[in-house]
Amino acid sequence: MISLADLQRRIDCGELSPDGAIAQSREAIGAHEKAVGAFVCRDDKARAATAGPLRGIAVGIKDIMDTADFPTEMGSPIYKGWRPRGDAAVVMMLKQAGATIFGKTTTTAFAANDPTPTLNPHNHGHTPGGSSSGSAAAVGAGMIPLALGTQTGGSVIRPASFCGVAAIKPSYRLLPTVGVKCFSWTLDTVGLFAAGVEDLARGLSAMTNRPGLLLPAAVKAPRIGLVTQEFAGAPEAAGAEALRLAAAAAERAGASVRALAMPDIVAEAWRIHPDVQDFEAHQAFAWEYRENYDAMPPLLRGRLDESKDTTPAAYDEAVKVAGRARHALSGVFDDVDVLLTLSAPGAAPKGLGSTGDPRYNRLWTLMGVPCVNVPAFVADGGLPVGVQVIARFGADAQALAVARFVEEALKK
Amino acid sequence: MISLADLQRRIDCGELSPDGAIAQSREAIGAHEKAVGAFVCRDDKARAATAGPLRGIAVGIKDIMDTADFPTEMGSPIYKGWRPRGDAAVVMMLKQAGATIFGKTTTTAFAANDPTPTLNPHNHGHTPGGSSSGSAAAVGAGMIPLALGTQTGGSVIRPASFCGVAAIKPSYRLLPTVGVKCFSWTLDTVGLFAAGVEDLARGLSAMTNRPGLLLPAAVKAPRIGLVTQEFAGAPEAAGAEALRLAAAAAERAGASVRALAMPDIVAEAWRIHPDVQDFEAHQAFAWEYRENYDAMPPLLRGRLDESKDTTPAAYDEAVKVAGRARHALSGVFDDVDVLLTLSAPGAAPKGLGSTGDPRYNRLWTLMGVPCVNVPAFVADGGLPVGVQVIARFGADAQALAVARFVEEALKK
Repeated sequence: MISLADLQRRIDCGELSPDGAIAQSREAIGAHEKAVGAFVCRDDKARAATAGPLRGIAVGIKDIMDTADFPTEMGSPIYKGWRPRGDAAVVMMLKQAGATIFGKTTTTAFAANDPTPTLNPHNHGHTPGGSSSGSAAAVGAGMIPLALGTQTGGSVIRPASFCGVAAIKPSYRLLPTVGVKCFSWTLDTVGLFAAGVEDLARGLSAMTNRPGLLLPAAVKAPRIGLVTQEFAGAPEAAGAEALRLAAAAAERAGASVRALAMPDIVAEAWRIHPDVQDFEAHQAFAWEYRENYDAMPPLLRGRLDESKDTTPAAYDEAVKVAGRARHALSGVFDDVDVLLTLSAPGAAPKGLGSTGDPRYNRLWTLMGVPCVNVPAFVADGGLPVGVQVIARFGADAQALAVARFVEEALKK
Repeated sequence: MISLADLQRRIDCGELSPDGAIAQSREAIGAHEKAVGAFVCRDDKARAATAGPLRGIAVGIKDIMDTADFPTEMGSPIYKGWRPRGDAAVVMMLKQAGATIFGKTTTTAFAANDPTPTLNPHNHGHTPGGSSSGSAAAVGAGMIPLALGTQTGGSVIRPASFCGVAAIKPSYRLLPTVGVKCFSWTLDTVGLFAAGVEDLARGLSAMTNRPGLLLPAAVKAPRIGLVTQEFAGAPEAAGAEALRLAAAAAERAGASVRALAMPDIVAEAWRIHPDVQDFEAHQAFAWEYRENYDAMPPLLRGRLDESKDTTPAAYDEAVKVAGRARHALSGVFDDVDVLLTLSAPGAAPKGLGSTGDPRYNRLWTLMGVPCVNVPAFVADGGLPVGVQVIARFGADAQALAVARFVEEALKK
């Protein structure tokens, strides 16, 4: 993979020109894209900016994010050839930091569950996960150092786990969703994919102009709460093994690790996530669903068909549960610095019939807390499996710092 | 003005056909639009739907809301001829309830402060207010029974006050902002304009499929907290008189009315509203501001120029103040059912140089609480002045019911 931090260091010391860094991505795309299919469209003549912390960094943008310079097709024929007038806020953040928008990456239609043709870069017989399929695969294949995705259930952390890349779903609204196709306004969160945790920290810090997000010189051994999310069912062997390895490595490196059960209201929030998501999706996709029913992606359409009788009262109740659960979860962080839990049930499923199961992700999206995927294990078939480090709402710097601690511990 | 409730009753009993109701708006537009200039574009051949609670109701949509069937120009040359692919969620809510989208109404550019050419329907020498200028003026002139606007500072309640119409800025997120041009995601709220409070309740209930928003048969005499917002400065004589009249009328009708001071943290929230708004506006308008600087509306551009050094830390601190203030305000509602306060400093300013001052509105937008404007007084020049009734977050039904109580009391 291409490390953003490495590129920055080499550019800063004059060893590499920004355009040289872009050329490296261009060549890698030439070598791998045909096999993986991570891009919807690209600007192969794209040049580097001459200033900004992200000069020389080629970025892929999930194709549900508005771009003035590329079509934005949402993975759906309903938006075939669609060209927004302006750029999404996060795209402008990248540009202002000097990044080069190299292209748009594949997305499941409207960031739901209908798979794209993108292949897992580590094993072409498997899904890269979704909905941010192309962004995860493009970074995982070593084509680009940074990509943007979004998560409403598990659309950043799950594909990152499957593709063996680091990723962050930041605290809710740390990154704006202005100009990003809406699925559920309570849940939709823009996230980043990169080679490692330091790369994520540098990317997120540059986008938001928040130096506090950069990694500290040394990370104090953290207090880790190990969470198995039994309310979401049991993991596969590979998922369980990834979590065991990460916990053991962290403990060896000096962390205190103890099993932690979630308060009942938090498990209840896991259960009602679909009520929030689907009620809002009916409003967010009202035009597509009502006026373009036949062209809707079948899995999303089926989901909307099934949930169309959800009442406002059921939604209001779900929103209240989420609020109480956020409060209870905040108390959990009085005793631990972070939670460590599964990023996905196991390795990427075989074939392209499914993008995998977001059941270990959706709770944390609803809670709005920062989640960082760290690759932890390689299962049969060369398929990566990650774990996620989760911090208190707003403590994105801490989530990144401890994720780095776990990442380093796993290398030992 | 055209009452939505009256039209519904006449259509329900067969006295008026839905198309007959639309024809009434068409004729009224023919009579008044030339003088007022409330519309950007219209479908003068629009027909009524045959079903739905809002069949026969002609609605005007503020031109920052996406419509597939009309251009959406945001009041700015930057979006000249812009045609979204789909409809905003609130537009689809209206269509699903059977309403007829009759046209797009004027908006100050990007719903900021640069005035439109729209005139106050009660006195053509004065502003109708903004930013939802056309929606307020179209209802106030008796052209249409319902219109949608948005409020980030005071863009629904203030123009409603100036134009002598009822309006509701509902609780934050009761109506989705999907497909509405974003100014500030923490603040932007879609609102409704109609002839009277019952019309608002019927419109909002039909859009959201929430029968609980309809007015009760009888409203219990409420406990009213009278709030003068001294932290926002003193009102003009006409504003003070409107508040005095409304409070006196409510008291005569049986309400308990007592002066109420806001907790210090709430006044502090009033002060930091611009920090939240402008920091988010820099991200929401990043493409327009960076790539179309010269074409930006001068007042908004100046505002962005002045606030461009606001730090993430200052924004984070402002967001925290807002959270603490929402909590403190919730405690205030333990002792009173609603707050009664100024909708604007006074009557609509003379000329079209300014859309007026949102200083009595912005706090409540940041608090996310439901606000209803009730016309209360007519100042010199035939200029209306309203007051606003404010309830606890989520208590939109109560805000409407008490607003109706005040409206009726003022008629006695």
